[in-house]
Amino acid sequence: MATAIMAVQALFSKLGTSMTSDHSSIVSMNIFVALLCTCIIIGHLLEESRWTNESITALIIGLCTGVVILLTTGGKSSHILVFSEDLFFIYLLPPIIFNAGFQVKKKQFFRNFMTIMLFGAAGTFISFGIISLGAMHFFQKMNIGSLEIGDYLALGAIFSATDSVCTLQVLNQDETPLLYSLVFGEGVVNDATSIVLFNAIQSFDLSHINFSSGLQLIGNFIYLFIASTVLGVLAGLLSAYIIKKLYFGRHSTDREVALMILMAYFSYMLSELFYLSAILTVFFCGIVMSHYTWHNVTESSRKTTKHAFATLSFMAEIFIFLYVGMDALDIEKWRFVSQSPGKSVGVSSILLGLVLLGRAAFVFPLSFLSNLTKKYQFEKIELKQQVTIWWAGLMRGAVSMALAYNQFTRSGHTKLPGNAIMITSTITVVLFSTVVFGLMTKPLVRLLVPSSKHLTSMLSLPSPPSTPKPITDPLLSNGHDSEANLGSQNVFRPNSLRMLLGIPIHSIHHYWRKLDNAIMRPVFGGRGFVPLVPGSRVEQSVHQWH
Amino acid sequence: MATAIMAVQALFSKLGTSMTSDHSSIVSMNIFVALLCTCIIIGHLLEESRWTNESITALIIGLCTGVVILLTTGGKSSHILVFSEDLFFIYLLPPIIFNAGFQVKKKQFFRNFMTIMLFGAAGTFISFGIISLGAMHFFQKMNIGSLEIGDYLALGAIFSATDSVCTLQVLNQDETPLLYSLVFGEGVVNDATSIVLFNAIQSFDLSHINFSSGLQLIGNFIYLFIASTVLGVLAGLLSAYIIKKLYFGRHSTDREVALMILMAYFSYMLSELFYLSAILTVFFCGIVMSHYTWHNVTESSRKTTKHAFATLSFMAEIFIFLYVGMDALDIEKWRFVSQSPGKSVGVSSILLGLVLLGRAAFVFPLSFLSNLTKKYQFEKIELKQQVTIWWAGLMRGAVSMALAYNQFTRSGHTKLPGNAIMITSTITVVLFSTVVFGLMTKPLVRLLVPSSKHLTSMLSLPSPPSTPKPITDPLLSNGHDSEANLGSQNVFRPNSLRMLLGIPIHSIHHYWRKLDNAIMRPVFGGRGFVPLVPGSRVEQSVHQWH
Repeated sequence: MATAIMAVQALFSKLGTSMTSDHSSIVSMNIFVALLCTCIIIGHLLEESRWTNESITALIIGLCTGVVILLTTGGKSSHILVFSEDLFFIYLLPPIIFNAGFQVKKKQFFRNFMTIMLFGAAGTFISFGIISLGAMHFFQKMNIGSLEIGDYLALGAIFSATDSVCTLQVLNQDETPLLYSLVFGEGVVNDATSIVLFNAIQSFDLSHINFSSGLQLIGNFIYLFIASTVLGVLAGLLSAYIIKKLYFGRHSTDREVALMILMAYFSYMLSELFYLSAILTVFFCGIVMSHYTWHNVTESSRKTTKHAFATLSFMAEIFIFLYVGMDALDIEKWRFVSQSPGKSVGVSSILLGLVLLGRAAFVFPLSFLSNLTKKYQFEKIELKQQVTIWWAGLMRGAVSMALAYNQFTRSGHTKLPGNAIMITSTITVVLFSTVVFGLMTKPLVRLLVPSSKHLTSMLSLPSPPSTPKPITDPLLSNGHDSEANLGSQNVFRPNSLRMLLGIPIHSIHHYWRKLDNAIMRPVFGGRGFVPLVPGSRVEQSVHQWH
Repeated sequence: MATAIMAVQALFSKLGTSMTSDHSSIVSMNIFVALLCTCIIIGHLLEESRWTNESITALIIGLCTGVVILLTTGGKSSHILVFSEDLFFIYLLPPIIFNAGFQVKKKQFFRNFMTIMLFGAAGTFISFGIISLGAMHFFQKMNIGSLEIGDYLALGAIFSATDSVCTLQVLNQDETPLLYSLVFGEGVVNDATSIVLFNAIQSFDLSHINFSSGLQLIGNFIYLFIASTVLGVLAGLLSAYIIKKLYFGRHSTDREVALMILMAYFSYMLSELFYLSAILTVFFCGIVMSHYTWHNVTESSRKTTKHAFATLSFMAEIFIFLYVGMDALDIEKWRFVSQSPGKSVGVSSILLGLVLLGRAAFVFPLSFLSNLTKKYQFEKIELKQQVTIWWAGLMRGAVSMALAYNQFTRSGHTKLPGNAIMITSTITVVLFSTVVFGLMTKPLVRLLVPSSKHLTSMLSLPSPPSTPKPITDPLLSNGHDSEANLGSQNVFRPNSLRMLLGIPIHSIHHYWRKLDNAIMRPVFGGRGFVPLVPGSRVEQSVHQWH
């Protein structure tokens, strides 16, 4: 068998790809798998640590391995696997985003839908604008190299993409549900927005920017957003319908699980096929699957899918960070920079500053705007929470790396000094933000919301009443009518913006429940509007609370 | 993101690989995932069919898709994905073999260990010899092309590799445990043997075959067998030790599951690294993991691993058959053959005949030999069972394809007519044996062992007493001392061969239990010698029977 693989590799090396030695790719795979195991074990041992988390551990282990390899090979090579966008976007990202949709607390997510959209879409546009303009302003003076207007705009899109993966490891869905849903929901919409922006920049004729092309960009974004969502929802509903109609559990648990995995992946690939935002599609597919499909399968399939999806996502996350860490030390990329280290440090610092500024420029104003639409004092996003949201979204990760590689390695593999500096600066920003900001996030969250007990009561209580519950729903009405319980403690302050946004949300919510009970549930199965989200002991305990 | 992937593809096409169009690989992945879903749904609908099974369905769907693509593209191309040994050996085979080891009834397997080894090792050598000599005899007269002695020997190894995947879908572990464990166990050992043979043939200097090189081959085989097994056992024990010692369940189910998957894969890759038989390694790793590791994890991890491994294996199986079906119609391969269709049919028929003959030549004599070592009449392999074993191992599958590609496409991509005919003949034999023999297996099993009830009593009863149980084991001694119950019905016929083989097995078994209880269990965890094999309701019900 070893010979079999060697023959394939020999074939590859004939074709001119980079596999030079027969055995080397098996060696790298061994090292990589061993490192993944190490990350899991160390992550387990550091579980109770105040500072670190699994992503940072993986990133640091990746960096250390890079150093070891660099020393062993005498400075020739530092990475075992070359970072490939293909691997990242086709194999690693889908399970993470799907699992996020599958395990997200849907009630929290849809209750804060408007705020999430505001942060994810409008916020990303603001951040994009500030970073692009800032980069244009500073870098044109620094004489870096031949950067065009397209490059500056691309930089804006690259550094507007927050790293939702790393963020999620710091925040806890059970402890801080509101913060979690805001930061995470924003992350998903943000991913989609920055990729849409990036694609638009690459395909637009940038020499003639005017009002109509701006409108076209926004229209394009809206189309992509709606089409991607609809595709994901349809794929989820189709899987629910097939599994319910054909009653798969009758014969085999494996078929149910396999079909769920394949349908989710199919939605992702289909979205890619139609040039839509596959991240949004697979996210909504996950939400629909956990709302309908998950309730149609057998008990053992439910347990299996819940944990299997989480495990896949977990492995993909560690893989990505290990990968980024190992790739960061690639000596090729640093060769150009070593001639002018000062310039590289300057560019990285400016970009980091712009990231901080760009995020601050939308988190605080948009939180203010969002607070205007809220009825009660306690539903509003407090300043401390705003700071946490601002901080939690500062990390930049694999999406930024992938986009930067795409933009700056196309023409001649970082041969231009300007491109080389942009690549290394992206790596620097990703490493610095993930490690330094990441390490400081846990202590910061504890500082801003001191005890875990306090944290829970402060952050999970405000959210439930943000959309009033209709009395028609028997599952929700008993025992937790929060308006009655909590109304006395809070000042009722109607204002026009709240009226404008609150009422449509209320009625959409109301009609959606009616539709779900009357049509959706009979056709697609599911447990009704209050779904037992996979792994939601807390969801239930929150109910008992009110 | 679509652009991101397009850029990567553009890069690939620059490097000279076969991706010509940006979008085409996404299109193929979509078709492929959709076909996988279709296979699962059709397999579910045909579950109760007398004839077909999932493998045959996938193969036929693959063939039909190939035809459709052939017609749509006007005869230019018929396959969406090119068959790659790398994909097969690195990604698809490991989950199947690991799951087989993980879910196999260990008691049955070890009870019949000697017979399995006899069939798997000695039987494969006999089959290899007959096919090689037969091919040499017939093909040299047929003027096919420049085939060397190495090619004939390789043909022997290629067509000695049975397809354990397809076989397992026909036989049922619960209905026919003895047959299942014999056929399946043989399949695993056979896989290892034929690959070892194949590698040996490729690396040996074949112009000087003598007695010492023959001894070297056998010594090499024994070394590989032992080293691979030991590696798999060590990897399994390591995973059990780590998970028990660090008590992973404390923090996270996902980490446990991820670690089990990664450790199993690590054992496979490590075995590849040392040029061992990775199939054997991962199979024994699966056995050890289900005996120790599986009992150390949390309840939800147990459910998850049991179903997740089965699902992964199931998906890989369907993938392989779909893949083989689609690849079979590749027009390139058939171009040479179309000039002399008669010769190709002749070669395929001869090979098919040799496969039938080669298997008959060892199943019946070795069954006779195995029967000599058995104490009771009913433990022996009856003639009807021998016929079933012979038939169930006739299918040839992806391993044969992969080995044939390796042997006959190395020098100049099937440009030599001899090589081209060998490739198409392999495809023909694989398709014919899987579809025709596969379709006839279910009815044949029913014919030879008429009713399912009868089947169970006939095939599962004989096996338990084949090694006498020591009285020291409290878990086994109550209520099913089969020797006492059944001894009166059967003639006690001692003979020298039985004494020779039976006593060592007895004492090995006895000491192994002592060791397991005294040392292994305290260190590595696990449930004791009578393990609750994942999914073994039947294992328990068999106990209650006796």
